[in-house]
Amino acid sequence: MVLVFGKKKKLTLVSFSYGMCCGGDNRNTGPEDVVVKVLYCGICHTDIHQAKNHLGASKYPMVPGHEVVGEVVEVGPEVAKYGVGDVVGVGVIVGCCRECSPCKANVEQYCNKKIWSYNDVYTDGRPTQGGFASTMVVDQKFVVKIPAGLAPEQAAPLLCAGVTVYSPLKHFGLTTPGLRGGILGLGGVGHMGVKVAKAMGHHVTVISSSSKKRAEAMDHLGADAYLVSSDAAAMAAAADSLDYIIDTVPVHHPLEPYLALLKLDGKLVLLGVIGEPLSFVSPMVMLGRKAITGSFIGSIDETAEVLQFCVDKGLTSQIEVVKMGYVNEALERLERNDVRYRFVVDVAGSNVEAEAAAADAASN
Amino acid sequence: MVLVFGKKKKLTLVSFSYGMCCGGDNRNTGPEDVVVKVLYCGICHTDIHQAKNHLGASKYPMVPGHEVVGEVVEVGPEVAKYGVGDVVGVGVIVGCCRECSPCKANVEQYCNKKIWSYNDVYTDGRPTQGGFASTMVVDQKFVVKIPAGLAPEQAAPLLCAGVTVYSPLKHFGLTTPGLRGGILGLGGVGHMGVKVAKAMGHHVTVISSSSKKRAEAMDHLGADAYLVSSDAAAMAAAADSLDYIIDTVPVHHPLEPYLALLKLDGKLVLLGVIGEPLSFVSPMVMLGRKAITGSFIGSIDETAEVLQFCVDKGLTSQIEVVKMGYVNEALERLERNDVRYRFVVDVAGSNVEAEAAAADAASN
Repeated sequence: MVLVFGKKKKLTLVSFSYGMCCGGDNRNTGPEDVVVKVLYCGICHTDIHQAKNHLGASKYPMVPGHEVVGEVVEVGPEVAKYGVGDVVGVGVIVGCCRECSPCKANVEQYCNKKIWSYNDVYTDGRPTQGGFASTMVVDQKFVVKIPAGLAPEQAAPLLCAGVTVYSPLKHFGLTTPGLRGGILGLGGVGHMGVKVAKAMGHHVTVISSSSKKRAEAMDHLGADAYLVSSDAAAMAAAADSLDYIIDTVPVHHPLEPYLALLKLDGKLVLLGVIGEPLSFVSPMVMLGRKAITGSFIGSIDETAEVLQFCVDKGLTSQIEVVKMGYVNEALERLERNDVRYRFVVDVAGSNVEAEAAAADAASN
Repeated sequence: MVLVFGKKKKLTLVSFSYGMCCGGDNRNTGPEDVVVKVLYCGICHTDIHQAKNHLGASKYPMVPGHEVVGEVVEVGPEVAKYGVGDVVGVGVIVGCCRECSPCKANVEQYCNKKIWSYNDVYTDGRPTQGGFASTMVVDQKFVVKIPAGLAPEQAAPLLCAGVTVYSPLKHFGLTTPGLRGGILGLGGVGHMGVKVAKAMGHHVTVISSSSKKRAEAMDHLGADAYLVSSDAAAMAAAADSLDYIIDTVPVHHPLEPYLALLKLDGKLVLLGVIGEPLSFVSPMVMLGRKAITGSFIGSIDETAEVLQFCVDKGLTSQIEVVKMGYVNEALERLERNDVRYRFVVDVAGSNVEAEAAAADAASN
């Protein structure tokens, strides 16, 4: 039994079966495979893009979900790193070529032949399927151990949102305490940005289009400053003040107001996949040697690191745990940014078949 | 006597006088000032922008010229670094605040209060005037010694074009032998890019809109490869192959074809001041952690370094030395990219007043 988003491009939760019961659609366990019983799965904005075919490459039926935490229930004969009973995570990528230069540098997320956890084709020619399912079969290379001290539902958003902000901060040398960082957009990724940057000892400014989230950002997430991008005076006063901005906005937006906030050598790190062109004038980068760059999730190694970082720093992600029957509503709320800050589906705790059937019936 | 571009915004060479003879428009020599008798002055594309008010901030009368090599003829009482008879260079910047973070980091070219060699206002409230003049008075901080082994006319283009390519290669850690670099645009800055990058031991690809300069780039400048940007097959074959591209194109152009050429973590370094917005889609940078960045000339320290680098590597800039009377024609030829690769005016070797008067008469 797996749950999929149907061909209708409407966000309906339908029960779907390959004629088999739970896990029946999975491949046979290969020598290096780990079979994971899904406990929790986070809902990321990308799941909406994929389910609704915003990127034009969706194939249906589709089983989304790439912030997966589960328990190992079986391992292949050559799996040494994991054993039955381990709590593990699976993220955005489940395969790579292992031969290209990014693969050799252990940044397999940049492999041109990477295989996505879902809406992709695996090496056996079959579609990959994500974490909104009872089980997943995943090559051990793409599995991370959830460290002791981290609740599985807490770990789920770290597997995409968490590592997505952690990776660029680490890669671009932005881990030094005392740096001044900006977080643009306060969604699932942005809220982790505030938390991770604060835990690194940065002075963190949340930048938003309205003052709506001010109290939340300052009082609840612990940001040091809050900047409304339409407040010209405040933006001018903050010019040349930030070492970096983590830009999590997933829709078209101007870049120049944010480039102006950066210091010499400051970096604007784009994390949102935006199909419409973004623009800037060259002196805005040249005259401060600023960089417009971007980053894509993080490596498996960095995923393990961010999990441990959160344990060490006592960081938790702020989540709303829901049952599978609530997925459609959760997606709708996420789409209107009505969640603080990540939905995590309690997959194992849901009566999956019954809830799916009920949701399916309700949507017809 | 100084030569200026007149109010007419037409590129006429006119004789202009503040009612005094040679150097009479200069300030009195301050305690830290160096008086330089101009020997040679290069012509940069920016001189056209300034003379023609392309950036909207030109003030006339204007004395352009910011690749100035001359002989020290007088020094203020507190000048210890230079003595009469020294051959020195003056570049784009002649003042800075000395207190901001870029100034303290010795990258004064990024000081927000930097003073340009011309078309700016000096600390005494008077206009700054560039190197198409008999003499300049310059604070010793903004003067570099031309090292032994470098002909003064050869040194001139290094003070802007040379350091403009050297600085980003050094700053962005792109000096390791074996790197694969692209040079986009083969003008004054681009040709120095090929030479400097080759001298660093890089594999250099010249990227151009036509195959017109292929032989020149490969045979004469020593490039390793030549890529025509309209050749889709060649561009596709070169995808993901370059560590950096030095983009010297000073007019609007698409970025995505060049971003596609970059490897993981590759850098597109913009050196051209372009007022019209440049655009890209975010996945083009995110999915290879690529950076669109830029750089602006280089510091005084880096200017001294690139001069020595050229001596050490036996590098020469490729120049066409002309007399002052040819300046108008030189500017016209530069504007249509008809120069290999830099005009350098033999200021001291010109009969400046007579040639200026003749050119002035001819243009009326």
